[in-house]
Amino acid sequence: MNLKEDVGIKAANYVKDGMTVGLGTGSTAYYMIKEIGRKIKEEKLNVVGVPTSTVSKQQAIDIGIPIKSIDEVKKVDLIIDGADEISTDYQGMKGGGAALLFEKIVATYTDQVIWIVDESKMVDKLGEFPLPVEVIPYGQHQLFHLFAQKGYHPSFRMENDQMKITDSGHSIIDLNLTQIDNPEKLAKELDETVGVVEHGLFLNMVNTVIIGKQSGAQTISNIR
Amino acid sequence: MNLKEDVGIKAANYVKDGMTVGLGTGSTAYYMIKEIGRKIKEEKLNVVGVPTSTVSKQQAIDIGIPIKSIDEVKKVDLIIDGADEISTDYQGMKGGGAALLFEKIVATYTDQVIWIVDESKMVDKLGEFPLPVEVIPYGQHQLFHLFAQKGYHPSFRMENDQMKITDSGHSIIDLNLTQIDNPEKLAKELDETVGVVEHGLFLNMVNTVIIGKQSGAQTISNIR
Repeated sequence: MNLKEDVGIKAANYVKDGMTVGLGTGSTAYYMIKEIGRKIKEEKLNVVGVPTSTVSKQQAIDIGIPIKSIDEVKKVDLIIDGADEISTDYQGMKGGGAALLFEKIVATYTDQVIWIVDESKMVDKLGEFPLPVEVIPYGQHQLFHLFAQKGYHPSFRMENDQMKITDSGHSIIDLNLTQIDNPEKLAKELDETVGVVEHGLFLNMVNTVIIGKQSGAQTISNIR
Repeated sequence: MNLKEDVGIKAANYVKDGMTVGLGTGSTAYYMIKEIGRKIKEEKLNVVGVPTSTVSKQQAIDIGIPIKSIDEVKKVDLIIDGADEISTDYQGMKGGGAALLFEKIVATYTDQVIWIVDESKMVDKLGEFPLPVEVIPYGQHQLFHLFAQKGYHPSFRMENDQMKITDSGHSIIDLNLTQIDNPEKLAKELDETVGVVEHGLFLNMVNTVIIGKQSGAQTISNIR
């Protein structure tokens, strides 16, 4: 069984007629967007999608999901998105696909947040996955040096031997932390660091997590 | 007497041979850059300038100041910059010229920070001048609404009937607060707001303030 496809389809069942839906980015969100496209076509579902990246926007357009930007809607009813890690207390890390900024912006104006993951993403503590930090290119080497001095083991995100550029024209520095003991403290520190646009810690944000398992998907609701 | 020219020239005297100097942006910094250019030409001063905007970069190039980006130097010895307001406890507000992001990035990696202002910029409390907030365009109308709900009286910075775009491709939302009772609290709140790239509160940052007065310039040193 393809666990990503399984949870992608399950999550799409949360989408009801008339909803405005945030469309996450990544290999699991891909199946959710595909399923919403099928429902629009075959079940005549009436929804508007708010994409979180140029990739999810293009997929939505290709399969016929009507889309609007976050600034063209009053609010978003539901966002369905993947995650790179979810801890036992349901804090998340995202941004492996470099779409963390728009994902966080859309989630900020959304009533219900659903994350869909396969079971390999569930961890005791966040941090084994590198923490993506989106940064202003001007000063990025100074900031890299600062992170190195703090022992955060930074590395620039690369793509085809070039520094990865996000949809907003920023760079990504991944912090290789191994284990994050206090995500809230680290989030505040990064928020207050000059040159940091956003980071991949998504804290106190998710309402529902759907975990794909070989034994069948598990849904955890009412997290907040 | 032109107070801005007076303090611009005085501040340039802090620049010593061999220094790397952050070049601020604005109508007062203009005179400082001009004077450094004169010293390079007439006194054979050997300095490198690190500009904080495309405007100060162009001025430096035009008058023959060798320039480097913040990422091409080890650190900056001195930055000289203007300010829109300085409170009695030497907290600053900047960004009237929309260059606050690069100004703050360069100041972050600088040993000594000098602000040059005319006496009209000295205030009891910050806030009469609108507080500039640099924001990600995606979601900016949602953020504007959020600021309005909080009673911050936001307005988009305009230029020639278009929304002003910063050197980094972001927008500016000015907050019309009248009086900021707790700048540190507001700074933290803005730092943690999704979609905010940077804001114009420059706190616990300045070392020396030079105030242009009709009665003669006043220098306040060792602030930190």
